[in-house]
Amino acid sequence: MTSLDATVSPTDARAAIRRGDWSNTTTGIANGYAQANLVIIPEAYASAFLRFCMANRAACPVLDVSEPGSFHPQALGDAIDLRTDVPRYRVYEHGELVDEPADLVSRWRDDLVTFSIGCSFSFEEPLLAEGVPVRHMAARTIVPMYRTRVPLIPAGPFHGNYVVSMRAMSPADAIRAVQITTDMPSVHGAPLHLARPELIGIDDIHKPDFGDPPVMEAGDIPVFWACGVTPQVALMNAKLPFAMAHAPGHMLITDVPNYRLKYR
Amino acid sequence: MTSLDATVSPTDARAAIRRGDWSNTTTGIANGYAQANLVIIPEAYASAFLRFCMANRAACPVLDVSEPGSFHPQALGDAIDLRTDVPRYRVYEHGELVDEPADLVSRWRDDLVTFSIGCSFSFEEPLLAEGVPVRHMAARTIVPMYRTRVPLIPAGPFHGNYVVSMRAMSPADAIRAVQITTDMPSVHGAPLHLARPELIGIDDIHKPDFGDPPVMEAGDIPVFWACGVTPQVALMNAKLPFAMAHAPGHMLITDVPNYRLKYR
Repeated sequence: MTSLDATVSPTDARAAIRRGDWSNTTTGIANGYAQANLVIIPEAYASAFLRFCMANRAACPVLDVSEPGSFHPQALGDAIDLRTDVPRYRVYEHGELVDEPADLVSRWRDDLVTFSIGCSFSFEEPLLAEGVPVRHMAARTIVPMYRTRVPLIPAGPFHGNYVVSMRAMSPADAIRAVQITTDMPSVHGAPLHLARPELIGIDDIHKPDFGDPPVMEAGDIPVFWACGVTPQVALMNAKLPFAMAHAPGHMLITDVPNYRLKYR
Repeated sequence: MTSLDATVSPTDARAAIRRGDWSNTTTGIANGYAQANLVIIPEAYASAFLRFCMANRAACPVLDVSEPGSFHPQALGDAIDLRTDVPRYRVYEHGELVDEPADLVSRWRDDLVTFSIGCSFSFEEPLLAEGVPVRHMAARTIVPMYRTRVPLIPAGPFHGNYVVSMRAMSPADAIRAVQITTDMPSVHGAPLHLARPELIGIDDIHKPDFGDPPVMEAGDIPVFWACGVTPQVALMNAKLPFAMAHAPGHMLITDVPNYRLKYR
């Protein structure tokens, strides 16, 4: 079993995943390169989903939309194969999770369109580089994520509420984090909310809906960003006859350096 | 008695003040133009005070330093007379307030240097223009200001703790306000702190040290900016034999449009 780490190249990481030598989370792998959430749906729904993404850009910042039937995301790396290069996928039928396969080769169809959506992993490195501690990374846990009561703008069958990721930090670091992430709109951009979780429907900050419980220090406030799990929740809500996605935490590792996502 | 309002020009406002026809606060007068805090000290202390300003830029953003003996701040308007154009001044001897005159004509000296320091009034208009309510303006009260326990970097005789102004707003507006004020570093720039007043030594948010009690709505958090009262506190702490300043709230109205302070 290959062991992947922060220093591996995106090409080598994807090769190991493609061979079936890595089926774990992609957190902490190939540092410096953007990872992407995937939503894979029939072309018949692609226009509505694109409208949904445009209407809810903070939650669904689109990095690439593939040609129908193509499994190559042109903007993210020439050698990527969307059917094989993610450690684990999810298959939905009528909104129900029916399988978690390691590849999509046998399920691929000529009418599938893949949306690659930016991920907050890409702004964690700039935060660290500018001196803002990221507590869940230091603790080697998964970032806590919460369902909120903040509604998304619906489009076609796609609807739901925002899911947010949370990073706890000092108020001064929260201000710095707003500045840093404002410049990275394609990986969720500035926070949606901070300091008062109850205002967005989070009743217990210590019990996230996804990920691990938060690591908080004295004097910290919670800072909330729109999360790439949001489009997957909207996808489930849409109850399409057939749809696929990456499994949460098991992302597409792209050839795009995180610094390229500044100002775009 | 002349009545000055938001629509008067800076030239007309200063003329009324110079004639002695206006001795009140300059809040809400000549909207659209920057107002400045003044610190007026003998040249012997000017170098130390400039070092102090450079070391504590968020609190002391310098807009202009006059030539010794000159009462014309070159960067702020050709026709300004620093001796007469502020509604009320303060005179300090050895750190004690000894007078609050309406002009400084009889007290002017050939060795005086005037520091004009940016004021948060200048970012309140951009906040409003971009949809962030400013509660104390709507309520027609003076912005609440607080002494903190956050120390300034000392320089020569100048030292003390930050004084902060506070505006209460929703968390989403606080994030927007960070973005807007980040672009205006010469009028205090981004907030210093938010959400948790006790962390910077503010024990009761409802009892400010200067200004009026805060106007807060349900769901608001307090957002704190470095305040132009800070240099005046440092000036008092320095206990110079002789020093002068504007009286708080009675500012110099300049010819500089607020929009000119974006990105500088």
